Amino acid sequence: MSGIADRLRAALGARVHTDPETLAAHRRDYWARAEIADLTGHGPPPPAAVVRPESTEQVATVLRLCRDARVPVVPFGGGSGVCGGVESRPEVVVLSTRALDGLVTLDSRELRASFRAGTMGGDAERRVASEGLTIGHWPQSVELSTVGGWVATRAAGQFSTRYGSIEDLVLALEVVLPDGRILRSAETPRAAAGPDLRQWFMGSEGTLGVVTEVTFSLRPQPESRRLAAFHFPTLESGLEAIRRFIRVGWQPPVVRLYDERESRRQFAAQCPEGRCLLLLVHEGPTGAVTAEAAGVDALCRAEQGEPADPKAVEHWLEHRNQVPSFRELLERGLVVDTIEVAATWDRVSGLYRAVVASLRELPEVALASAHSSHSYRSGTNLYFTFAARVEDRTRMAAIYDECWRRTMRATHAAGGGIAHHHGIGRVRRAYLRDEIGDVGVALLRALKRSLDPDDLLNPGVLLPEPAANAP
Amino acid sequence: MSGIADRLRAALGARVHTDPETLAAHRRDYWARAEIADLTGHGPPPPAAVVRPESTEQVATVLRLCRDARVPVVPFGGGSGVCGGVESRPEVVVLSTRALDGLVTLDSRELRASFRAGTMGGDAERRVASEGLTIGHWPQSVELSTVGGWVATRAAGQFSTRYGSIEDLVLALEVVLPDGRILRSAETPRAAAGPDLRQWFMGSEGTLGVVTEVTFSLRPQPESRRLAAFHFPTLESGLEAIRRFIRVGWQPPVVRLYDERESRRQFAAQCPEGRCLLLLVHEGPTGAVTAEAAGVDALCRAEQGEPADPKAVEHWLEHRNQVPSFRELLERGLVVDTIEVAATWDRVSGLYRAVVASLRELPEVALASAHSSHSYRSGTNLYFTFAARVEDRTRMAAIYDECWRRTMRATHAAGGGIAHHHGIGRVRRAYLRDEIGDVGVALLRALKRSLDPDDLLNPGVLLPEPAANAP
Repeated sequence: MSGIADRLRAALGARVHTDPETLAAHRRDYWARAEIADLTGHGPPPPAAVVRPESTEQVATVLRLCRDARVPVVPFGGGSGVCGGVESRPEVVVLSTRALDGLVTLDSRELRASFRAGTMGGDAERRVASEGLTIGHWPQSVELSTVGGWVATRAAGQFSTRYGSIEDLVLALEVVLPDGRILRSAETPRAAAGPDLRQWFMGSEGTLGVVTEVTFSLRPQPESRRLAAFHFPTLESGLEAIRRFIRVGWQPPVVRLYDERESRRQFAAQCPEGRCLLLLVHEGPTGAVTAEAAGVDALCRAEQGEPADPKAVEHWLEHRNQVPSFRELLERGLVVDTIEVAATWDRVSGLYRAVVASLRELPEVALASAHSSHSYRSGTNLYFTFAARVEDRTRMAAIYDECWRRTMRATHAAGGGIAHHHGIGRVRRAYLRDEIGDVGVALLRALKRSLDPDDLLNPGVLLPEPAANAP
Repeated sequence: MSGIADRLRAALGARVHTDPETLAAHRRDYWARAEIADLTGHGPPPPAAVVRPESTEQVATVLRLCRDARVPVVPFGGGSGVCGGVESRPEVVVLSTRALDGLVTLDSRELRASFRAGTMGGDAERRVASEGLTIGHWPQSVELSTVGGWVATRAAGQFSTRYGSIEDLVLALEVVLPDGRILRSAETPRAAAGPDLRQWFMGSEGTLGVVTEVTFSLRPQPESRRLAAFHFPTLESGLEAIRRFIRVGWQPPVVRLYDERESRRQFAAQCPEGRCLLLLVHEGPTGAVTAEAAGVDALCRAEQGEPADPKAVEHWLEHRNQVPSFRELLERGLVVDTIEVAATWDRVSGLYRAVVASLRELPEVALASAHSSHSYRSGTNLYFTFAARVEDRTRMAAIYDECWRRTMRATHAAGGGIAHHHGIGRVRRAYLRDEIGDVGVALLRALKRSLDPDDLLNPGVLLPEPAANAP
């Protein structure tokens, strides 16, 4: 397989890397399961080469050369994905987008900014912030993920309840298709000109093309911000308050409701024991913020919400982007992960109870909790955290898989959606059929086959194995 | 071709119609060009049969039977499309969705309603209104179009500036694919589970499947509504006011700015001559409406807007769904149509001037005007109206085509998007390449080929002829 590195080098010279450190750094993303594999000496092996194209044309060259050589290509952004969307094998080439870096154009009056896809999220946000603007997209990984990765994984940020998820923030995309052709979507506010082609690549997870440029529709930084917090007697009463204020049209950007376990664990100073804490951030023109805070306050009180110290929100704002070290936890014998799902309002409480109960049946599970962090007229997400004590490292992977299996199964049985904003990757691919059905899988497979007939772009991700059933 | 009617009848009995009246009523939609053809005796001939399936399974049966017989199928909803998305030939079967009628489920607490695709828009809205709810989608054709047609054409309604277009209102879809398989999307508030499959069918214009059921994410009817109007010295100053109030986060559902010609023609009583009228409807919780009306008022005055009598808004609300009779106008020697396009803020004034100037170069053109009716952070739409005096009926089609050609060409040259909410149909298919590029057309064609390899579902619509260039 060294042949492909030579061929790439002939075309792209120093953009091609085969030194052991670079190869090792591109073996995988932040998936906890891969961390377990590494810990037990079964982690993914390094790729044949890492290539860091500097231009869209170079991306096209890489895809064409690898296609001609029948070599799989694994796109790699910030490496912060948590679903195993990136994993190398000795025969693949990893295409890092990180040299596609920086601002292309920024127009403050037009609220429009184009970044090359490998630009880190935090860098992009700071660049537009220097003009008084915001992208409005704040995933926990904002400092670890790229803007292209946001699109490829169909990301949602912490301020999504008002500002929307990535599909609501992208004005235009540039994508290199598996055969090297380049798609640039039109820069138009809205179109009825056939199906929206941008949507084909939002959530494609590197299987249908490589995103090379992202144009955002920005916002000005808000005139006002107000923080508020309430605690509720039950998760259900808190959910009911959210449902009611979203229903009438209030849209605080941040709406986070923690179950009593997470409230206790993270906000003991601001939330009485046994209560569920709701954090709110209101943003907008001052008059709108004042009206919204009053409207939301009344509906929270109507559901037995009691005001809590807004310092809880400040605390969260300060610490919100801390990412756990799975490695450190594993070394202490703790198998930990988070799993985000979604459900309509009528199903969310049952889903919560069922998942927590199913996880707790496992004797190893020491902790199973959740919060809601993205709400809609039709429902909300739940973001589960589980922790299992597993001293025997050889059993960690099996316990991890079982926790996932139980969460996916209980979610589907409760009528929920199995993936809210982290994507499918490898960890959910056997469950995708539960979400989109046999026909949905067949549709995705048909599109994949027509764009990438030899399955060379990020194989093994998103689409279930043909005829595979979920465990 | 009578064979297909017999075969359909064997399976579907009385759901199959071959009487001349029914066939004649399903020859075409509301496209002005087809009306001209009818007037001059060259209108589309009736189809081989009209079939009105009563169930999703019957739709699948029709598609399978026609596929086996290699007979093209033309889906037909309300027939109110204005782009030639429906046109029959003697060898096709028209599939009317009108017997797929009525509510499937409605859950007021969940803000969720499912309608069968042939339900008329006005009936659907009245059904949810009886529970104090609204779909929030108000196309001019609301009483003439079906909910499935809204999806297939990627429609936008008059209240879209706050409530969004059809892609923002649909929670779930059921679609029968060209080979009879049935796709049902998950009822989940949001997912990162691969590309959003609903989007493949929004704007597919009957070429990729037949929409059979639409589930909406509803809203309660707003607590308050306030009407306001301003007139501006120029179209540009009015556009600037809109840009500024959208920018800071105000979102009146209705934001309509008329150029001086349309202001004069439609609102002479409320708008001084030479000024451009802006109509606004604010909706929401009372506190939000009060804050928004004040915020928008200040920004309109800052751009030389002067308050106008809000009776102009009442007048518009009362008359907004009146649809012109192209036939009557043609018989008076007037070739009339509307063309909606879109552009980013920096391009919209230039686009407006260029289109109007290009249309006026034609000696026959007696009127060329526009209004903006759907605004976004990134730009707005323009809705042009043209009228040409053509006494010689044999010249009407050529003049009509030339007006369209000039509008499409000037829009593209000014950097605008060629279709805001009416779709592509037949009238724009030669121009689609300008909007989505060669690669975009190739992508759509690849998907079409993989779902409908024999091009049997609504052939001749949306996709340009292979290798065709726009005139």
